[in-house]
Amino acid sequence: MIESLNEAFCTLPGVGKKTAQRFVYHLLERNREGGLNLAKALVDAMEHVKHCSSCRTLSEKDICNICANNNRTNTQLCIVETPTDIHAIEQSSVYKGKYFVLSGYLSPIDGIGAAELGLDELEQKLHQQDVEEIILATNATIEGEVTAHYISNMAKHFDVRITRIAHGLPIGGELEYADINTIAHALSGRKDYGG
Amino acid sequence: MIESLNEAFCTLPGVGKKTAQRFVYHLLERNREGGLNLAKALVDAMEHVKHCSSCRTLSEKDICNICANNNRTNTQLCIVETPTDIHAIEQSSVYKGKYFVLSGYLSPIDGIGAAELGLDELEQKLHQQDVEEIILATNATIEGEVTAHYISNMAKHFDVRITRIAHGLPIGGELEYADINTIAHALSGRKDYGG
Ligand SMILES: [Zn+2]
Ligand SMILES: [Zn+2]
Repeated sequence: MIESLNEAFCTLPGVGKKTAQRFVYHLLERNREGGLNLAKALVDAMEHVKHCSSCRTLSEKDICNICANNNRTNTQLCIVETPTDIHAIEQSSVYKGKYFVLSGYLSPIDGIGAAELGLDELEQKLHQQDVEEIILATNATIEGEVTAHYISNMAKHFDVRITRIAHGLPIGGELEYADINTIAHALSGRKDYGG
Repeated sequence: MIESLNEAFCTLPGVGKKTAQRFVYHLLERNREGGLNLAKALVDAMEHVKHCSSCRTLSEKDICNICANNNRTNTQLCIVETPTDIHAIEQSSVYKGKYFVLSGYLSPIDGIGAAELGLDELEQKLHQQDVEEIILATNATIEGEVTAHYISNMAKHFDVRITRIAHGLPIGGELEYADINTIAHALSGRKDYGG
């Protein structure tokens, strides 16, 4: 029982045996109620959180709070790899448009192509909605750049400005670990993207 | 729901907002089954793990595996602060006696006295069982030293050798973070303890 809990914690990213053990003993010795609360929160989230039908981010509702917010413009669409990236950008308070979440990057070798990243839905949006600018905010990794390039090629056929988030972000680094100021700076320094 | 899960993870030791968020997104995007498994393991452990009635360590059974193991001598009793310390010492494979878990250290200001550390039970053991040596393996912190001193004063009235685990362990450091070799070395270099 103790061992199973240890192993279950080890499936979390960055959690090794020692850390898992620390979690287990802490909960068992000092906070069993906290352990039961965590279990309940896990079941609730795993069973009820879905994806926003508009932007594909994780959401408890069919349409997430950002998509449902009429004070945010539909004319800007920021393309990110993960929901965590939205959270990071939101904290910089610079951006007032909408988002689109790829949930990854192009990786043909892993079977992740345009369909898996929702690029059909993205194309639909460009057809149907009043998008004037798409901001490519995929990570500054090879995969992120390839994905940005692919999307810009697709978006070229529409009358939209295509920009890439500025790389004040450290090259090779990931958006979700950047600090708020770097993100704000990178957003306002964004440039037209040639592909 | 996402936010509640975030907060629940933040109650784990050493887990801040960013780490919690990484856990949440990882489970929701990549491993919902793993999230449900973790929930189940948590409920099982929180509801069914108790304390060994002999040594006070965490155990699924009334008597833990170490206490129930007749190949281990009752003549040595190693006093530790936490169940994690047992695990650390066991990994060094040097010790073949039994344990006694204080579940903390003396801290009158927090209301943790002799009774809370089970020192009555420890005294009973010294009365009733064939203990020839007690090894004080509390941490090399002020609190650990004070606790060791207190126990050695109590044990003086019995015909037992009282030893203190040797401080190859870094002073101020905690047993559970030491490497196997250091622990093995510290155990075999133990000395008689004057209090
Ligand atoms: Zn949305
Ligand atoms: Zn036991």
